[in-house]
Amino acid sequence: MNQQRGVTVWFTGLSGAGKTTIANAVDRELKIAAASVELLDGDELRQTLCRGLGFSAIDRIENMRRIGFVAHLLTKNGVIVLVSTISPYREIRQELRRKIGDFIEVYVNAPVAVCEWRDVKGLYEQARAGLIENFTGIDAAYEVPLQPDVECQTDRETIAQSTIKVLTKLEKLGYI
Amino acid sequence: MNQQRGVTVWFTGLSGAGKTTIANAVDRELKIAAASVELLDGDELRQTLCRGLGFSAIDRIENMRRIGFVAHLLTKNGVIVLVSTISPYREIRQELRRKIGDFIEVYVNAPVAVCEWRDVKGLYEQARAGLIENFTGIDAAYEVPLQPDVECQTDRETIAQSTIKVLTKLEKLGYI
Repeated sequence: MNQQRGVTVWFTGLSGAGKTTIANAVDRELKIAAASVELLDGDELRQTLCRGLGFSAIDRIENMRRIGFVAHLLTKNGVIVLVSTISPYREIRQELRRKIGDFIEVYVNAPVAVCEWRDVKGLYEQARAGLIENFTGIDAAYEVPLQPDVECQTDRETIAQSTIKVLTKLEKLGYI
Repeated sequence: MNQQRGVTVWFTGLSGAGKTTIANAVDRELKIAAASVELLDGDELRQTLCRGLGFSAIDRIENMRRIGFVAHLLTKNGVIVLVSTISPYREIRQELRRKIGDFIEVYVNAPVAVCEWRDVKGLYEQARAGLIENFTGIDAAYEVPLQPDVECQTDRETIAQSTIKVLTKLEKLGYI
């Protein structure tokens, strides 16, 4: 049977901060270690589980709760779940931490100016041009985690350094 | 690590046919055998994962796909997933079978007259009185499985007999 303890590792932060990049790197490392891992990418889930949800506060809350529900089910069943989604609301992140229990909040922190300079998906440019509304960091709020379990400062550390921070925390807490 | 092979056991049938009753019994047996099992009950999911969805054809399809998405994730990760939901559309059930791969369709079959006579939740009475619209078996279609992996005829077999049918199939296919 399943011997591994499940946990949800929740990567939160602005668009372009590096959430999915770090989550992917952590995913690779864990798979090498033969762990049961599932990466839930917020952008991808908007095509499937969260199809039809927009970017209003209500829809963002529903989006976070729906992803949290699935992460909880997987965590209960011994999976290490890596969630990568902006998830801007502190209260909802706290709610999910309480519900899931085995929960590590990773704040992927980069100044909005850095994220905007990177603009990997060209979304900041569209937001500045008014083509996208309710864009986090531009015209929608991002509530910074007050006590994240891990903070990755992606404007001043390498992807490898951020990845090691997350893996070290998982090890320290006995999940790997 | 996880040694168990995952599988989705999809219980389909009319309201009151006995889907959740059998799924619960299977769940208990598997838990005694220390298997990693998750029961996804359609009625309960309408309060969480599928909140806001109604009973139009479009919403029912979305409901089935959303539950299927979660069942797939769990199955991939070695969980035996018991899904109990009317899921009236053959094509969508087939779509989920193709996607999930490890998939056992259990047709929980009882004549509508029997389900209506049982009327555990009082829903048939409400449907007949016109208080509920789009009720499966009354004014909404149920597409009978043509080649279910298991058929439980709950008007003529006991819960224990139905449960054994499902467990036997799981064993025969090597999942337990």
